[in-house]
Amino acid sequence: MAPAINLNADMGEGFGAYDIGNDDLLLSIVNSANIACGFHAGDPTVMHGLVLDAKKHGVSIGAHPGFNDLWGFGRRRIDMKPADLEYMIAYQVGALQGIAHYAGVKVTHVKPHGALYNMASENEDYAAAIGRGIKTVDPSLIYVLLSGSVMEKAAEKVGLKYAREGFVDRTYEDDGNLTSRKIEGSVIRDPKVAAERVVRMVLDGEVTARSGKKIKRRIDSLCIHGDEPTSAAVGKAARDALVAAGVRVLPLPEMPLG
Amino acid sequence: MAPAINLNADMGEGFGAYDIGNDDLLLSIVNSANIACGFHAGDPTVMHGLVLDAKKHGVSIGAHPGFNDLWGFGRRRIDMKPADLEYMIAYQVGALQGIAHYAGVKVTHVKPHGALYNMASENEDYAAAIGRGIKTVDPSLIYVLLSGSVMEKAAEKVGLKYAREGFVDRTYEDDGNLTSRKIEGSVIRDPKVAAERVVRMVLDGEVTARSGKKIKRRIDSLCIHGDEPTSAAVGKAARDALVAAGVRVLPLPEMPLG
Amino acid sequence: MAPAINLNADMGEGFGAYDIGNDDLLLSIVNSANIACGFHAGDPTVMHGLVLDAKKHGVSIGAHPGFNDLWGFGRRRIDMKPADLEYMIAYQVGALQGIAHYAGVKVTHVKPHGALYNMASENEDYAAAIGRGIKTVDPSLIYVLLSGSVMEKAAEKVGLKYAREGFVDRTYEDDGNLTSRKIEGSVIRDPKVAAERVVRMVLDGEVTARSGKKIKRRIDSLCIHGDEPTSAAVGKAARDALVAAGVRVLPLPEMPLG
Amino acid sequence: MAPAINLNADMGEGFGAYDIGNDDLLLSIVNSANIACGFHAGDPTVMHGLVLDAKKHGVSIGAHPGFNDLWGFGRRRIDMKPADLEYMIAYQVGALQGIAHYAGVKVTHVKPHGALYNMASENEDYAAAIGRGIKTVDPSLIYVLLSGSVMEKAAEKVGLKYAREGFVDRTYEDDGNLTSRKIEGSVIRDPKVAAERVVRMVLDGEVTARSGKKIKRRIDSLCIHGDEPTSAAVGKAARDALVAAGVRVLPLPEMPLG
Repeated sequence: MAPAINLNADMGEGFGAYDIGNDDLLLSIVNSANIACGFHAGDPTVMHGLVLDAKKHGVSIGAHPGFNDLWGFGRRRIDMKPADLEYMIAYQVGALQGIAHYAGVKVTHVKPHGALYNMASENEDYAAAIGRGIKTVDPSLIYVLLSGSVMEKAAEKVGLKYAREGFVDRTYEDDGNLTSRKIEGSVIRDPKVAAERVVRMVLDGEVTARSGKKIKRRIDSLCIHGDEPTSAAVGKAARDALVAAGVRVLPLPEMPLG
Repeated sequence: MAPAINLNADMGEGFGAYDIGNDDLLLSIVNSANIACGFHAGDPTVMHGLVLDAKKHGVSIGAHPGFNDLWGFGRRRIDMKPADLEYMIAYQVGALQGIAHYAGVKVTHVKPHGALYNMASENEDYAAAIGRGIKTVDPSLIYVLLSGSVMEKAAEKVGLKYAREGFVDRTYEDDGNLTSRKIEGSVIRDPKVAAERVVRMVLDGEVTARSGKKIKRRIDSLCIHGDEPTSAAVGKAARDALVAAGVRVLPLPEMPLG
Repeated sequence: MAPAINLNADMGEGFGAYDIGNDDLLLSIVNSANIACGFHAGDPTVMHGLVLDAKKHGVSIGAHPGFNDLWGFGRRRIDMKPADLEYMIAYQVGALQGIAHYAGVKVTHVKPHGALYNMASENEDYAAAIGRGIKTVDPSLIYVLLSGSVMEKAAEKVGLKYAREGFVDRTYEDDGNLTSRKIEGSVIRDPKVAAERVVRMVLDGEVTARSGKKIKRRIDSLCIHGDEPTSAAVGKAARDALVAAGVRVLPLPEMPLG
Repeated sequence: MAPAINLNADMGEGFGAYDIGNDDLLLSIVNSANIACGFHAGDPTVMHGLVLDAKKHGVSIGAHPGFNDLWGFGRRRIDMKPADLEYMIAYQVGALQGIAHYAGVKVTHVKPHGALYNMASENEDYAAAIGRGIKTVDPSLIYVLLSGSVMEKAAEKVGLKYAREGFVDRTYEDDGNLTSRKIEGSVIRDPKVAAERVVRMVLDGEVTARSGKKIKRRIDSLCIHGDEPTSAAVGKAARDALVAAGVRVLPLPEMPLG
């Protein structure tokens, strides 16, 4: 069977009068949308519009819960009690399920946003709290998490299916973590470079660090960011290269997950 | 068959470090809890605690969505677009459904809060938007609404089951509306007076206005407020009097609704 | 002495990761900036950037307080108690004063935002509450208000200097109110038309309604909106036409106010 | 000259319909009030009420700025950029100054709240950002900070007068930090014990750790918490003992600060 990959993107991050990102373009590239749930971004009307659009494009939908911090766009670490965090996840997933009824589609995955994702990838308590919140709401939900991080162990302990995520437009360090955005060159803006890298990730199951070191990383889903002017070109090139290499590009619920 | 009535109360209106109301006492009096959903009050942790407590008391749960106005506690009218309002309702109902999984119970009704309830009782556009939000999320939900108001017509048009609400501790005007809280005597604090009134409401299907005028009002559910020092005594007296009069006091899902 | 006019615009309405409007362009056209104060839009960092930019352009600054409703961008009417409203105004004006110290400039005017402006122009209680909040913080502040509305009377009773506002890019009705945005043609997008109209407003002290009727309106300050693609061209044309007609275009504190 | 001390308490931490703390009682014990500024708690109406009450009691007022986190009551650490933090402080101090005009009193100190205080006491970047925000708004403001922490150095570098704070009802560790609240016995609830300790702190300039170790700590101001049932008794006993020991108990602006 040909190898398979999912492409995902964060979407629906506008709020009221505010617009941000490039949802229309991304919907034509990815298979799965991570939809902001009103805490770090998104509002019920934005969410409503996006579930309808995602359905139109055959894109599967997931919740993209974040910290309750609109000012910081969910990018600031907040030191929450794991119990509060867990119920906050259940709340946001439930809220998106409520809105998803407008499109008659099922919420099939959950990917934490921004600083919450980063904290969970380093702190198993956070990763597990998120997992428990997800599982309580719907045990068939797929937990999208950083490949190779403690989130994998947390998902296993909680007993959730999970998808290991890699990044189309970011470089890695020797320890398998993403290069900090503060470092020159950490964001890949050349579509050709990105295309070549993702094919290697998917076919060889490894990422190449900035140093040239090769790191084993099983990747089930590749994230395309929407906030660079080059995002769409990079995302499109990555998708085209994967298809040309014979990789099946699938929505998350159709992915063979470990 | 003996006449039946439901008793409901608004609950879970704390937020973070803030506590308010008297949920413990009310849970032992009512059959159905209207749970704040995080917009005018309530947070995921408060909601979590309440769904568990409600289950323990055999109290059915409903969403109590309100305006996105914590400062005003949902008591200030906000002039929203009906579409925004509709999706806001779906969001809040979904969020409570998410949390209700912790108790393994079903959300079975929705009652709008404060200024939103008041606006809906006067404005069919608002009442219908709320109804559409409810129905989209779950068409079996019961819409709790002001007996005799335009909300009844809205619920019928939308095609939802509904429960007509009356008030245990408030006086009425000749037009069937509640006496404004600003008017002396509008809140009934004498348990005996309240007890006698509710028995008449349920058995005769009519409320007596301040003027003495009798107004036909079918009442399926009686609301007990929790914010007066006399609330518990008034609520308990009302319940006891109803039981003594042979009225069956039931959770909302067991009520015979028109 | 040549006639004089002030040009103002609403600015600093971004929030965190969200950007909106066209502040850079507007700062080169207007003399006075109305700066959002963190309730309907704006955050401390956005406010900080704007007070520095305004100073650089020699543009006088004022507070642009709005309802506590980021989701609605301050465009939804909220039914507040006048006392709450009054203190909310004092709070927001004080907050901008705090930030204005970074530029070493004085806050010299206050113009309410959006739905709050509209409500105040119809409801003298609201207009007076705003006036009292302004006066308490600094009795030398100029209250920018809708020319011909009840706000004028409120400002006089409270004892504040005020500037009567007109609109560069909006048509008027026979009663002197602005044509609703919902009506085709209510927004003037043709720079030549706008330029001609503003010269008539300032030199003749009258606005021409859609019907052709002429209405007396003393105008001290003209508002240029920033949210139309044509805004900058319309604003620039208005300014150039006024200068060409010999009108002095001044910051608010230099305007001769009645 | 007799030794002098200031007594302070955090106040005005209600919000809208929510009440918390025990402001009335505390106002009769302390000389200085730290007033919440609307971010972690407090709203313009609460702030308004408190500046009037403080004036009535001859209690000096200060800003008590916190993180923008009402849900967490400012007790959760948030990883902000120092620049955002700095402007957020200026905003909150300015807002309280706006409201203080209602009482005709001057804001004379600033004490950060909760997690922000804790972070600043460990992280000089945070402590300095707060200091710069304070100084920009008014260089005569007194920075209330944890005695012996990096905040002292930050205040000196920024060039602000500061008051070193100790705690009436908390035990210390050998390193001079407060014992974690999670440890049994960390909160002193016995008025006699508290009274004896504060007299030693003020007269000897040292605190006694749980181990018995004596640590030099200059204390200019003692904080009385308001959230324990024993708070008022402990605070009153502390005050009475200080007065009996001949210590002058003064508002912050009258304190001789180093």
